[in-house]
Amino acid sequence: MASRQSLLAIVPFIVCLVSTTASQSILQVTQENTFSGHRNIRIGDHLYCDSWRFSVETNDAGYWSTIPARCEGFVEDYMTGEQYLSDSEFVAEDSFAFAKTVEIAGDGRDAWVFDIDETLLSNLPYYAEHGFGSETYDENSWDSWVYLAEAPALPASLNLYKQLEQLGFTIFLLTGRGESQRNVTEKNLLYAGFSNWERLILRGPSDEGKPAIVYKSEKRSDLRDEGYMIHGSSGDQWSDLLGFAVARRSFKLPNPMYYIA
Amino acid sequence: MASRQSLLAIVPFIVCLVSTTASQSILQVTQENTFSGHRNIRIGDHLYCDSWRFSVETNDAGYWSTIPARCEGFVEDYMTGEQYLSDSEFVAEDSFAFAKTVEIAGDGRDAWVFDIDETLLSNLPYYAEHGFGSETYDENSWDSWVYLAEAPALPASLNLYKQLEQLGFTIFLLTGRGESQRNVTEKNLLYAGFSNWERLILRGPSDEGKPAIVYKSEKRSDLRDEGYMIHGSSGDQWSDLLGFAVARRSFKLPNPMYYIA
Repeated sequence: MASRQSLLAIVPFIVCLVSTTASQSILQVTQENTFSGHRNIRIGDHLYCDSWRFSVETNDAGYWSTIPARCEGFVEDYMTGEQYLSDSEFVAEDSFAFAKTVEIAGDGRDAWVFDIDETLLSNLPYYAEHGFGSETYDENSWDSWVYLAEAPALPASLNLYKQLEQLGFTIFLLTGRGESQRNVTEKNLLYAGFSNWERLILRGPSDEGKPAIVYKSEKRSDLRDEGYMIHGSSGDQWSDLLGFAVARRSFKLPNPMYYIA
Repeated sequence: MASRQSLLAIVPFIVCLVSTTASQSILQVTQENTFSGHRNIRIGDHLYCDSWRFSVETNDAGYWSTIPARCEGFVEDYMTGEQYLSDSEFVAEDSFAFAKTVEIAGDGRDAWVFDIDETLLSNLPYYAEHGFGSETYDENSWDSWVYLAEAPALPASLNLYKQLEQLGFTIFLLTGRGESQRNVTEKNLLYAGFSNWERLILRGPSDEGKPAIVYKSEKRSDLRDEGYMIHGSSGDQWSDLLGFAVARRSFKLPNPMYYIA
């Protein structure tokens, strides 16, 4: 809500402007063109971008390659403000509410699958330097960031992870990262506070070039064949959740920065 | 954006209050407790309710029976403001963008399935009298409303419907309403501007008691068995879209008023 608080904070300034010029038209112009003093998003843009976010988060939009230019400030405000944290907390609460209804057999076969990037780990420090998804993907700078192994945990997900562990779920991590990044990924997960996962599954040589939705479905299918019951699955991408061998319940975390098919 | 415009509209009032009392604390109290002068939603509630809406519209929440009490004003503002119309327009645009990519064979087998209530028809006049979904479902008053046959079209959906018709799709209407309401439903659809559907499918005696997601999946499966390719499906409920025999692409319309399993 940072932007709304900012709006209230600039109220005296706006009214001062109006009262000194005694012109109603200035306030009207301000009303039409400015939603937030913080990022100078126009009201029309905010309406549009809120609808765009609905469209991408429900997957109505299907594949999309870039944030609409008029929504770049909106996405930055969303990702750096309270709403993103609040939304991800809500998803974690939904997930935990379901997890508590699962009868854990105690044979280690009751599983939960987590994606990693923008699900367990937040790459916000990286995206803050790279236009919050509005810049074209750059493999070099991304790899440099990954090798730092310093991505923080998404707080709500870390909390959920520990709750699921306590409930007795067997936790699998299923990521689109490649095997060459196994060590740095493990290092980063430990750095961020995660531990005790059953298995970290990364793309091997035979997975190269597969769409994420196929690769992840195949890996879930393998887990099923091994005898695991996948009760829940958490991911910020629909390709983490849809396809085949889907979990009993899937939990979509927010991510208006990028789309992986 | 009605509520945000209202906020700007009450700016002079707030500042007047502050300047006459010369007390900064009043403005601070206002900042903490009020998001919108229109409905008196507190900032904390707006953050919470926006997250709740994310949770129900992505289906992360799964089944839910009632709008949280603190979100009743939020839902009313959403449904009666510009955001609901804007969101449904965005969904219609997503749907049309996909529909245009479909190669229509011309044999009448390329199909699109629409739900009716809160998809083609808007029952907002009814819900405005019944707490926007916050009141317990009342079959008598609902049936009286249905028999009026005066629900207006959701504008974006009427536009999409006509566009799909022009593209050559065969249109099926699949509703949870029962056969006893066939005549009034047809009457209402025509009143609202819809025509030329291939078939209106309502719950028959053998469908009674089935969860919507099962009933609708079975009916889509029947259409498939008849040789139709269901390219798209539009509905405000996840039970319109998920299950089996799902469409190639599904389009979730907004509805924070109620959930049908």
